[in-house]
Amino acid sequence: MVLLREELGDVLRHARREQGRTLRDISAEAAVSLGYLSEIERGEKEASSELVASICHALGLPMSVVFTEIAHRAGRAERASAPVALPLAARDEDVVSAA
Amino acid sequence: MVLLREELGDVLRHARREQGRTLRDISAEAAVSLGYLSEIERGEKEASSELVASICHALGLPMSVVFTEIAHRAGRAERASAPVALPLAARDEDVVSAA
Repeated sequence: MVLLREELGDVLRHARREQGRTLRDISAEAAVSLGYLSEIERGEKEASSELVASICHALGLPMSVVFTEIAHRAGRAERASAPVALPLAARDEDVVSAA
Repeated sequence: MVLLREELGDVLRHARREQGRTLRDISAEAAVSLGYLSEIERGEKEASSELVASICHALGLPMSVVFTEIAHRAGRAERASAPVALPLAARDEDVVSAA
């Protein structure tokens, strides 16, 4: 199951690290405690919509970019868990050669 | 400010109505109370990640589709609130003709 808080946390942490910024830096700018931000990044806490907006703002990251990335991740997970089609033609051949 | 719960609620309500399904139908399938589902659709309550997944599943809606739509909505809001570039060339002309 794709869990929004896990994908969101991952995207936010990745963006912060890419910018070479610290939890302390972002937590101060987004007015959230360092511990809470860390839990959000690890997908352990659900952030309120206001807090999501505030963290994105602190990272200079448009929400459209964040949700496009989350959509891509969800898409990958969906494809990975999609049912695999069995090779039915090969099975028919087996039946024929056994007859 | 783009608020996730408002965009998400809107997308979920839109999908349910397009399918001609009732709050009662989806709330039963997603194991959430009818009142709570209604509040989520109106963007008044934050849904847990598990509940978001459960409602999407009840609607037969891949999360990738939901978050792509949310990204588009956020993008539109971002463009609508972007600073408007002033026509500086025209201003230069004004200065020239005033001289």
